Amino acid sequence: MVQELERVTKKLGIKEDSELGLPVHERTTLPLTLWYDHEKEKLILLDQNKLPFEVTTWETQDWKEGAIKGIKEMTVRGSQAIGIAGAYCVLLAACRFSKENDFLKKLFEAANFIGNVRPTAAPLSWAAGECAMAAKKAFEDGAEPSDIVEAVRDRADQIMADDLVLNYFLRKEGIKLLNGGDVVMTHCNGGSLSSTLMGHALGILEEAYVNGLDLTVISKETRPRSQGYRLTVWELNRAGVPVIIITDNMISISMEKFGVSMVLLGADRVSADGSVANKVGSVDIARIAKDYNVPFYFATSYTTVSPEIGDGKSIPIEERSTDEITEPYRLLAKELKANRKISSSALDEWPPTARICEVRPIRGQIKLFNPAFDVTPPNLISGIVTDLGYFLPEQISTLTREKMALLARERISSFLAN
Amino acid sequence: MVQELERVTKKLGIKEDSELGLPVHERTTLPLTLWYDHEKEKLILLDQNKLPFEVTTWETQDWKEGAIKGIKEMTVRGSQAIGIAGAYCVLLAACRFSKENDFLKKLFEAANFIGNVRPTAAPLSWAAGECAMAAKKAFEDGAEPSDIVEAVRDRADQIMADDLVLNYFLRKEGIKLLNGGDVVMTHCNGGSLSSTLMGHALGILEEAYVNGLDLTVISKETRPRSQGYRLTVWELNRAGVPVIIITDNMISISMEKFGVSMVLLGADRVSADGSVANKVGSVDIARIAKDYNVPFYFATSYTTVSPEIGDGKSIPIEERSTDEITEPYRLLAKELKANRKISSSALDEWPPTARICEVRPIRGQIKLFNPAFDVTPPNLISGIVTDLGYFLPEQISTLTREKMALLARERISSFLAN
Repeated sequence: MVQELERVTKKLGIKEDSELGLPVHERTTLPLTLWYDHEKEKLILLDQNKLPFEVTTWETQDWKEGAIKGIKEMTVRGSQAIGIAGAYCVLLAACRFSKENDFLKKLFEAANFIGNVRPTAAPLSWAAGECAMAAKKAFEDGAEPSDIVEAVRDRADQIMADDLVLNYFLRKEGIKLLNGGDVVMTHCNGGSLSSTLMGHALGILEEAYVNGLDLTVISKETRPRSQGYRLTVWELNRAGVPVIIITDNMISISMEKFGVSMVLLGADRVSADGSVANKVGSVDIARIAKDYNVPFYFATSYTTVSPEIGDGKSIPIEERSTDEITEPYRLLAKELKANRKISSSALDEWPPTARICEVRPIRGQIKLFNPAFDVTPPNLISGIVTDLGYFLPEQISTLTREKMALLARERISSFLAN
Repeated sequence: MVQELERVTKKLGIKEDSELGLPVHERTTLPLTLWYDHEKEKLILLDQNKLPFEVTTWETQDWKEGAIKGIKEMTVRGSQAIGIAGAYCVLLAACRFSKENDFLKKLFEAANFIGNVRPTAAPLSWAAGECAMAAKKAFEDGAEPSDIVEAVRDRADQIMADDLVLNYFLRKEGIKLLNGGDVVMTHCNGGSLSSTLMGHALGILEEAYVNGLDLTVISKETRPRSQGYRLTVWELNRAGVPVIIITDNMISISMEKFGVSMVLLGADRVSADGSVANKVGSVDIARIAKDYNVPFYFATSYTTVSPEIGDGKSIPIEERSTDEITEPYRLLAKELKANRKISSSALDEWPPTARICEVRPIRGQIKLFNPAFDVTPPNLISGIVTDLGYFLPEQISTLTREKMALLARERISSFLAN
């Protein structure tokens, strides 16, 4: 492990935890979502597919298994964490191929495979590419294979260290917005589980709470994948934060009943005009919060700011499998049949496949609509907290990729200097 | 069967359907939610607990079974339909006790039991009471026991006939608001399944569609009980109406993507100031619709108008069992265990019971919030369609119980006169 990563984890209060097998943040007891064991050359992931029912890890020493079972099958999730998992998969590949002919060629093929195993996660291909480039540079400098492996190791650890530090700065910025007694509404899982540790919206709340600020968080279920119910509640509860679970249609009544004082969400993409794409449902909360004069914030890594996307309308909206919507009703039909509440000849799912259409429905047809994101326009956003500072939506247009990279480097250096 | 009910069903195009065993509305193929077989003295209910997976009926000749399995266990639902089912349960009781000593005493005890089997449904105790009073009047007029039974029969049929006629007027009023090509968003199930036939919001849409008006309906899932997903989609699809299913957090994006032209919901209670209580989530749609300048209507029976409730804040909001929220996650844990995706020692439910609190959560605690209704204030409502006519929210204060009862009688008479 490079010394820098060791210093970063120490400064952040991250300790080894023999029970879980992943380092944990001591004050919140939140585990890192991934870790690399440099002695045993293995990648360890918090198995998020088993949450919230079971808290356990998944390990691999095989780069391809890491890419497929680890990344593609979403044992690890969240674009930042996926990127770092990808970097360590490249390290596993380097260890595997270092004694073979065509070491570099095989490593590049592996990095390419890893970088594309989930096509929409930009940090994944970036991080895998960074590690491959580190190997290439070492090779061109005349390094031995074993030293090429070390170059990949250093780069992967560096990416992890940088991410941990930037999440720290994001939390530091976000905490400035909070007051004791705040009741914060959130949606989906922009948090520890979607980053390496305590990133995005929830990281701010978790850090503030363990530092003594009295908070209550309202977590929306977030159908269809229910990340709010399954993941957000799990991680907030692990950190001790008092949580209220609501379904997605209880925004107004919860604003009134619990006196919501702010809304704080993660973000997937920020366009140059200060529009923000995030989990579908975000903009519904924004409209309602405006009616109640409740401030509405996003908290996100600077890497989601995309100066090349001019406005919110230009952000592509992915539509996901409609099985995500229908699945609970398949389980319900199964349960009703098992308990003989419906006959064995009853439908096994609803709606029946034969009546479902992909496009606009006509007579007798049913369409399921499952957009992953929606876009909140700048006029509904009070502010955007990032690891590089706090911005009003109209200030986003001043950010270029170069400027952001420079600011990030400055922050990372200052963290270790102090 | 009283002649009037026979004439009403004929005029409305309701025919016997030997396959299902319940009369159906010919043009939509929608079944009545309940029917009484006067030859065999049995009450037949559409078994809504089996929908949408199985379309079947449940029958009884026993008044108590009708009250418990039929009404209490929600084989029939919706306050209007429950009331009529209660009336027919009193008729079953009359048949049962007519040859016994203390006939009237036993009948009154039964009517009292039936009327209170679901305490919050006001039309239930009203309808059961009406049938008991009809028996009492016949007794006081010196009628024989068999004629007392006939008096109860007449009153029950009368209540059913009136309901069918008033739903017809509600649809007639509502259709005036629609235009060809409309895209209508709805929530929960204010429709055929929550009335005797084609009541509330969906009845309007179903009638308009089979009369040739081009419509598309967007049905929100309506967590936690998912009546929008399970019941609304079922009945609209049965009538042929094109349907788009969304989860509850897709309001804004659906407004934009599909060009929603109006919102139309059922209602549970209307207070004198024109506020409307309806399934939780209604007011969230209202706020968002206002932002999009999309008109927002409620469609409801006049019996939900409550002049004695001054304003929206005075409408009591029932909180329901939080099992409704957690149930899908219990089924998910079960499925994951069955498929060995989590270990047998993993949690069987989320959140674990030990961490759930009833009141405001403190450190380490989780609260589930499950209000049944929310209240939409009059300034967010474009209009309220009722079986007595169309009203602006500010016109509701002009309605008294006497005036409404008179208007209803006039309408019912005019229907049969034409």
